Amino acid sequence: MMGVNEFDLIARLVETVADARRERTSKWGVQVAVASGDDAAVTVPHGATAISVDSLVEGVHFRRQTAPLGSVGRKALSAALSDLAAMGAAPGEAYVQLGVPDDLDEGGCLELAEGLAQVAAEHDVDVLGGDVTRAPALWVAITVVGHADSADELVRRAGASPDDVLAVTGELGGAAAGLLLLDRPELAEALGEEVAEALRRRQLDPRPRLAAGRALAAAGASAMIDVSDGLGGDAGHVAMASSVRLVIELERLPLQAGVGEVAAAAGVDADDLATARGEDYELLVALPLERVDRASAEVAATGSALTPIGAVEQGEGVVLLAADGSEREPAGFDQLRP
Amino acid sequence: MMGVNEFDLIARLVETVADARRERTSKWGVQVAVASGDDAAVTVPHGATAISVDSLVEGVHFRRQTAPLGSVGRKALSAALSDLAAMGAAPGEAYVQLGVPDDLDEGGCLELAEGLAQVAAEHDVDVLGGDVTRAPALWVAITVVGHADSADELVRRAGASPDDVLAVTGELGGAAAGLLLLDRPELAEALGEEVAEALRRRQLDPRPRLAAGRALAAAGASAMIDVSDGLGGDAGHVAMASSVRLVIELERLPLQAGVGEVAAAAGVDADDLATARGEDYELLVALPLERVDRASAEVAATGSALTPIGAVEQGEGVVLLAADGSEREPAGFDQLRP
Repeated sequence: MMGVNEFDLIARLVETVADARRERTSKWGVQVAVASGDDAAVTVPHGATAISVDSLVEGVHFRRQTAPLGSVGRKALSAALSDLAAMGAAPGEAYVQLGVPDDLDEGGCLELAEGLAQVAAEHDVDVLGGDVTRAPALWVAITVVGHADSADELVRRAGASPDDVLAVTGELGGAAAGLLLLDRPELAEALGEEVAEALRRRQLDPRPRLAAGRALAAAGASAMIDVSDGLGGDAGHVAMASSVRLVIELERLPLQAGVGEVAAAAGVDADDLATARGEDYELLVALPLERVDRASAEVAATGSALTPIGAVEQGEGVVLLAADGSEREPAGFDQLRP
Repeated sequence: MMGVNEFDLIARLVETVADARRERTSKWGVQVAVASGDDAAVTVPHGATAISVDSLVEGVHFRRQTAPLGSVGRKALSAALSDLAAMGAAPGEAYVQLGVPDDLDEGGCLELAEGLAQVAAEHDVDVLGGDVTRAPALWVAITVVGHADSADELVRRAGASPDDVLAVTGELGGAAAGLLLLDRPELAEALGEEVAEALRRRQLDPRPRLAAGRALAAAGASAMIDVSDGLGGDAGHVAMASSVRLVIELERLPLQAGVGEVAAAAGVDADDLATARGEDYELLVALPLERVDRASAEVAATGSALTPIGAVEQGEGVVLLAADGSEREPAGFDQLRP
């Protein structure tokens, strides 16, 4: 970054990602009184505010050799927004912190910012602030702010009850299979190019299930979480927060097309790609049986699908139930383990 | 971080920094409906919300050889809160993202978290969420949320008018002199130990002027900014946002004790330490002449002092006026320049 002035770069990035609109009322009733360019952004929120933070780090969450900078920007914001989806919150504002290594030039920063800006535009998110600093490796730290009319409308991890149905949106395993394809391109030989490309896209460009999350909240979900650390581990968070036992039937998991073929070619278990690896960014939800039909219809209306995959029981922990009746505990995905 | 489980570590950090209080109403009228441990924190704010983000990166903003980890945690949160002080906002909540390198063990993370927790407690800030990830070097990215009854109560960078008085809280140059002492301990020989220690503390443990910021906002400040990038550069931001010219009289700058001696020993200009280097985290404020007395009294009541250092004029840019009548432009501090 030698020779690039921080304030000039921030100004360029702000031009790229931020809406410098003032005194604007967004569709969620949030007034933006001061947008980017001051010591802090100022909003006048309406109802309840949900805030979450998430970061992507080079060498840990992505490698620049396989992840284009635009997709790093897209994924950073999408992953953060996925946490709002898991609450059933409407996306509102975002704040971006960027650590820029010496070998990333201004063009690279702008490519990343353009990816962020695309996702912000897709979900009507205002990027209201940010911070750019030099760093030994590229990192992006995002703060997202979501809204709801009241705190009661938002769905927590606690709240799952015995006899609730456990269900998941969309398809699983694609992000892990896509990562295998990026690292070992020869694994794609058994797949059609369209299927392989969809798996790679799933890893590089996950989509936060914001509309599905709001639909599930409105349909009366008891508990919800996004599948970021792996279905098994994320189910464990719900089980612990709700003081229940979750039983997941492996044969009911909606695997993305090609996941089985990639797993076979790589010599790994397809179920492991769906349960022990993260980043599918689908929603895992518990809901009373009588609400499943309405929830399925409302999720379908958002362009996704809701698949029942198991049940909530009294007890604790998570059990993966195989077709032959055998049970095992899931392995988790831990971002701090090398 | 080998062998440390992310979720265990997060739980320990949360224990250290977070208030897991639920359904609590803080003194600013903000209800915390969901604290840490869910996909997002949920609050029900009252009035206007100010949000700012700020980060510290190892090798850029601090070196572990000279900065104890507790002080890194303290400074990260203090620097972020300083942006709320510059708006005149009351501090409310904070969110912490931490990038942890392999050579930092759990004890080191907790030491950093304890520093954060101290500053949070000092300013009654609730740490409601966070994210921990592996990283090539230590970084801390903070999001702070502040509050005011209405957006109009908050003071922006725009708003300074010709004939306003320009004033600064506290003392300047100490952070830059302290950094010189940390890098070159022999420079302290000309100083008493108490003066040297105060300079080092100023660099390692800056204090956000939150009470002074609120007092200045209540006293009718026209424009305000915190002195984080250097008085000259920060004055430039106010000049540009307000479309005015700021004249700073160098002989009126309130230099911290020992700054002149350290500058002389290092062979640099004491005025440069006060105007071209950052991190003093005092407040630079423009206010109408008739409000200066009240503002000074109210800032004094917070334990600080307000010193008039110049004037707002028609025009643009920033001028440093020396005692001999000569004028020059300030040099800025740019965090992206190596």
